Amino acid sequence: MDTSPTTEIIGILGGMGPAATADFYAKLVSMTPGSSDQDHLRTVIWSDPTIPDRTEALLGDGPDPTPWLLDGSRVLREAGATLIAIPCNTAHAFVPRIADHVGLPIVHMIGEVARHLTTLSPRIHTAGLLATTGTVRVGLYQEWLDRFGIGLVLPDAASQDHEVMTAIRAVKAGARDVTVTEPLARAARRLTAQGAQVIIAGCTEIPLGLCAEAVDVPLVDPALVLAQALVRRAGTKPAQ
Amino acid sequence: MDTSPTTEIIGILGGMGPAATADFYAKLVSMTPGSSDQDHLRTVIWSDPTIPDRTEALLGDGPDPTPWLLDGSRVLREAGATLIAIPCNTAHAFVPRIADHVGLPIVHMIGEVARHLTTLSPRIHTAGLLATTGTVRVGLYQEWLDRFGIGLVLPDAASQDHEVMTAIRAVKAGARDVTVTEPLARAARRLTAQGAQVIIAGCTEIPLGLCAEAVDVPLVDPALVLAQALVRRAGTKPAQ
Repeated sequence: MDTSPTTEIIGILGGMGPAATADFYAKLVSMTPGSSDQDHLRTVIWSDPTIPDRTEALLGDGPDPTPWLLDGSRVLREAGATLIAIPCNTAHAFVPRIADHVGLPIVHMIGEVARHLTTLSPRIHTAGLLATTGTVRVGLYQEWLDRFGIGLVLPDAASQDHEVMTAIRAVKAGARDVTVTEPLARAARRLTAQGAQVIIAGCTEIPLGLCAEAVDVPLVDPALVLAQALVRRAGTKPAQ
Repeated sequence: MDTSPTTEIIGILGGMGPAATADFYAKLVSMTPGSSDQDHLRTVIWSDPTIPDRTEALLGDGPDPTPWLLDGSRVLREAGATLIAIPCNTAHAFVPRIADHVGLPIVHMIGEVARHLTTLSPRIHTAGLLATTGTVRVGLYQEWLDRFGIGLVLPDAASQDHEVMTAIRAVKAGARDVTVTEPLARAARRLTAQGAQVIIAGCTEIPLGLCAEAVDVPLVDPALVLAQALVRRAGTKPAQ
């Protein structure tokens, strides 16, 4: 029954959060070139929002989400997925714990962002990061950008707590208004003032609350970069 | 590992088309009340856009999608889904062929729309339908609205072919501009001129190309009605 141009079946380990998963799947569809349904990629999505909060786990305040990630990966593999994408930056802190057990390649969102930054012109020396406190604390982006010789500037502790994390939690609760757009734009401006040539919207909730126009340098959306990587991996050229 | 307020796991048989599936999942998330990820419903989505076109099959011009629908339902059941939702109006023509074989309840989108219409005030006597030629030809909405004593007005053959179906195909190809909004709005106005008190956006692609403001009577979005039915079924009151 396979009429698809590719044999890949995209497995999305989602629910972190659920709105970001819906947004990611919409981006994957929009990045896939084609003029009819049948040109699109077969995809299976396991969206379990009951998975424990990743930042709380990394800060030692909550249960380890690893068993949930393994369980979701098993569902995707049994459903026929040939690779796994995880549209949650913070969850990538747990990728080393699951990678050897899922039996499928994981297309690493943060690695893809780092590679993407090296393709931009003019060359990026310094990137700013808006992300969860978990992602920042574990050094997920630092580790990958270091490999490519790109420096990272981060919000100070007050901006991280009161602008970035507060906005991320508000987006998870459904807010999309100035109560989230303003603090995120302020946090982004502080980073560009410190020399950031791009801002990485390094939590999948952030692009839901911050648009590119609110930032005076390019805003890099890791979900979009991951979607483009999946389309290329499936053997087609991303749209746009 | 179950911390969810419900034991239901929503199974979405999607990909018809993929953008409509992403839109439907976003609507399900937005209709679910809650202030954190963990308040949301566990969901598994099988999105196979390679499934043969439903309208072509109903018009005798293409292969029967039933085996694909059964295959997708099996994936959802094995992944743990406790019920199935199909965010494609036309695919409901095949529900009688699969219902006895999937081993899970199917929450019937068109039945939910018919019930929803009976709750509106003032009472709806006549509804207008914008849908695929397959959905119209098979009489899916006619059958359900008849049960509730609601009459149906349909586009004439020219409007159905050149306004409605042309716009649906354009949305599937990625268009969201006036080339789809204008013909759909014109087709809707013809139906209200014939007495339609509401317009049913009876193809999941239509709400992607027609907004409520373009229609001078209420626009009923079956995907939203189905999302609300799922949230109620999971034991919570839909948001808004």
